[in-house]
Amino acid sequence: MLEAIDLSRTVEKSEYKQEKDALGMKLGALQRSLLEHGVPVIVVFEGWDAAGKGTLINRLIMPLDPRGFSVHSTLAPNDEERLRPFLWRFWTKTPARGRIAIFDRSWYRRLLNDRVDGELKDEAMPAAERDIVSFERQLTDDGNIILKFFLHISKKEQKKRFEKLRNNPSTAWRVTDEDLKRQRQYGDYRDAAEAMLAATDSDFAPWTIVEAEDRRFASLKIFKAVIGALERKLEAVTEKKPRNRKADGSNAADLNVSILANVDLMQELEREDYRSRLKKQQRRLRELEHEIYVQRKPVVIVYEGCDAAGKGGNIRRLTERLDPRGYEVVPIAAPNDIEKAHHYLWRFWNEIPKAGHISIFDRSWYGRVLVERVEGFCSPGDWRRAYREINEMEQHIAAFGAVICKFWLQIDQDEQLRRFKEREQLPHKQWKITDEDWRNRKQWDAYYAAVEEMLARTSTPYAPWTVVESNCKWFARIKVLDSVINAIEAAL
Amino acid sequence: MLEAIDLSRTVEKSEYKQEKDALGMKLGALQRSLLEHGVPVIVVFEGWDAAGKGTLINRLIMPLDPRGFSVHSTLAPNDEERLRPFLWRFWTKTPARGRIAIFDRSWYRRLLNDRVDGELKDEAMPAAERDIVSFERQLTDDGNIILKFFLHISKKEQKKRFEKLRNNPSTAWRVTDEDLKRQRQYGDYRDAAEAMLAATDSDFAPWTIVEAEDRRFASLKIFKAVIGALERKLEAVTEKKPRNRKADGSNAADLNVSILANVDLMQELEREDYRSRLKKQQRRLRELEHEIYVQRKPVVIVYEGCDAAGKGGNIRRLTERLDPRGYEVVPIAAPNDIEKAHHYLWRFWNEIPKAGHISIFDRSWYGRVLVERVEGFCSPGDWRRAYREINEMEQHIAAFGAVICKFWLQIDQDEQLRRFKEREQLPHKQWKITDEDWRNRKQWDAYYAAVEEMLARTSTPYAPWTVVESNCKWFARIKVLDSVINAIEAAL
Repeated sequence: MLEAIDLSRTVEKSEYKQEKDALGMKLGALQRSLLEHGVPVIVVFEGWDAAGKGTLINRLIMPLDPRGFSVHSTLAPNDEERLRPFLWRFWTKTPARGRIAIFDRSWYRRLLNDRVDGELKDEAMPAAERDIVSFERQLTDDGNIILKFFLHISKKEQKKRFEKLRNNPSTAWRVTDEDLKRQRQYGDYRDAAEAMLAATDSDFAPWTIVEAEDRRFASLKIFKAVIGALERKLEAVTEKKPRNRKADGSNAADLNVSILANVDLMQELEREDYRSRLKKQQRRLRELEHEIYVQRKPVVIVYEGCDAAGKGGNIRRLTERLDPRGYEVVPIAAPNDIEKAHHYLWRFWNEIPKAGHISIFDRSWYGRVLVERVEGFCSPGDWRRAYREINEMEQHIAAFGAVICKFWLQIDQDEQLRRFKEREQLPHKQWKITDEDWRNRKQWDAYYAAVEEMLARTSTPYAPWTVVESNCKWFARIKVLDSVINAIEAAL
Repeated sequence: MLEAIDLSRTVEKSEYKQEKDALGMKLGALQRSLLEHGVPVIVVFEGWDAAGKGTLINRLIMPLDPRGFSVHSTLAPNDEERLRPFLWRFWTKTPARGRIAIFDRSWYRRLLNDRVDGELKDEAMPAAERDIVSFERQLTDDGNIILKFFLHISKKEQKKRFEKLRNNPSTAWRVTDEDLKRQRQYGDYRDAAEAMLAATDSDFAPWTIVEAEDRRFASLKIFKAVIGALERKLEAVTEKKPRNRKADGSNAADLNVSILANVDLMQELEREDYRSRLKKQQRRLRELEHEIYVQRKPVVIVYEGCDAAGKGGNIRRLTERLDPRGYEVVPIAAPNDIEKAHHYLWRFWNEIPKAGHISIFDRSWYGRVLVERVEGFCSPGDWRRAYREINEMEQHIAAFGAVICKFWLQIDQDEQLRRFKEREQLPHKQWKITDEDWRNRKQWDAYYAAVEEMLARTSTPYAPWTVVESNCKWFARIKVLDSVINAIEAAL
């Protein structure tokens, strides 16, 4: 999902100056409070080369009392470090109570550079991820705050920055052959980063993705995330219930990225084109349905989307020519009493397709981080924890061999209004529109934020989200068919 | 450490009857309370074949309202189950709120039978362990209580039971060829079980090892553990602070096994024998010191033991002929201010030997679960969590290639008293005895329980404990030398 994040967000200079100063004051005061209450803080900066880690770290430490923090640069391990387990050099640098340790790159080198360079083998990944999660949990259980920033820029922007550095004789030395090699490996590095974000995002040590093309925007986002985390922790500490930090997940930052903004909802398809492609792809999918049965591959397809985005029609076109013995559509409504009496994931585990079959979920477990979050049907701790729980479930299913495709059907507000009205007017569609739909519509912004966070936190290499531009239903149907076919073909 | 557990504990019939009835009444009442508060409970029975799972489960359910529980037998997966990820069949059987699900074998099949049979490859272990820990954490985060019993009998006892079953025509069918094969693989199975216990013992879903040779003893231990866990949970729930369960680790059962009872402290060595073996083994260790340097193997040696057990003298004999550039003795006293300002493991991470070197810890990170536990220097949640944290640290170091040897030096109370008095009388030893020693001595039983639990929960295939019978110092010194030499030789 990294590539889908809107990197065009900017902040004006004047606005930046003013806000930065106010936030800096606040941060300085919070640092003194931390010291008083003995709270240690760890801030991790990861991200693309040339994403501006140095500058952003400098801006963050400017308002801090220099006696209260240390910045640690994590280069390739030196000889002393190579002679010890990889976490050693980070354990020795964990901050004392009341101090702040800032890591310019960190233990995540292991899952990024070492991975891309082939130094960390695939089979050693789960152990490395487990060691890192244990490390972070041990520290937060001991009262540490851990903030992790991933600075994100596009491949194009990275190239531009490298060129600028190289063209200036005084900075040319900063671009190493290594950097250029990694620039060419942008795709590998992105895959590694997405796997890392999914495996190590937790309620106790969450990732914040920072759109770093505009440094002012990035600075303010970092400031706000740090301040928010410190405030929540200090509140918990001074209320003498420090443990609640974990229980209600209040250590977790709202992600506040923008993915949907980039989506061009106006994409469309002509009738003729639609008809011919529909027919062709439906046939192809039927062939594949047979193939996955023979090869015993399970397929999970998830549909989520705005009200009236066209999920039903889309699913009908997907299944129209399939052999009904090979697939099942699982409609998900509000949980019944028996379902409510179990873990929220229980009813979905019950519906996992067996090897060789397709399950199509019309709404899904993502209700936890969408409707349940927005309507307050579960606590903030519950839905914050859910990102990780959902990733864990999907990882388990994917490791078993399943193909997982997840579709978010997006329409804009105007289109939704048009469809709502149409439903009210057409007798055969009236059943589709309820008061609840109108109520949900009023919460558009809250849902929007929840969707953005869901897309960013649960799009993984093993279970990626695809945003489907659905203002034009024909376009949307073909896009889903194409995606499913590609995913299955890649897996066979 | 499984083999070291004292399996000779028994309960008299009359005592059993009386206690069982009282506990049964209590359990029945607790079950009603569970239902009222909607708390789901999961009870897992694992252990050796013929350890008596069936009987013990029957005894546990006898006092329960049959409408409130289900028993699930976990055989090899059937065709339906093979077609889905391995956790599927367990997810679908998780209990509704207020109900109890009892598993006769469980998801741990994956780490036991599948492991021993070679169906689960070594490189897939970390992922399987991670999936299981996530599964259990998701459920306990959702309010479930999880209790896990490992029923332990010796190889000899198992053989006896199989023979008895086979000699009786009406039960002979119960002993399958499979069982007999596994009986021959007792050692492999034990290794797998120890790895499993270490990797999946957590503060939220702890293991209880049950000495199962005497069924009355085993029954009562299981009753008490279940009652204890339910009571703690219900207390937390009715106090409206259910989350505290995790924070103070009160879900965790005290282990209450007996390992030290089996140890024969009277073992000794004659002077001549001691002298010749000491010389020989010290020379051998010096050769190995050189060898590990060449092969870049780090070695961690941990000494813990009762006061006056002879740690100092033992360490001196271990190091006497070593090259001082190759090893370091790290004495651990109470933490200083800087150390107190960090995570308790921080100062030990700082002292991890580099590859090719030996670090000898005179006392260690185990202070957390010994003196800090007994003296109340940390909260119950802190020391309960520490078993897992310590296993995680040692696993990380071992995975890096380190040899880890841990020695518990045990003497009996009489011998300790004799040594204390001797210290008081000999001028050159007076510095060794303090008021604190006398105070600790009064807490003998509390320390004893802490040591037993430590040995059981932190003895792992990658970092095993060796109990050293130290009433005779000569015997103890040679035993340590032998163990270290064997461990290093096995690793080179």
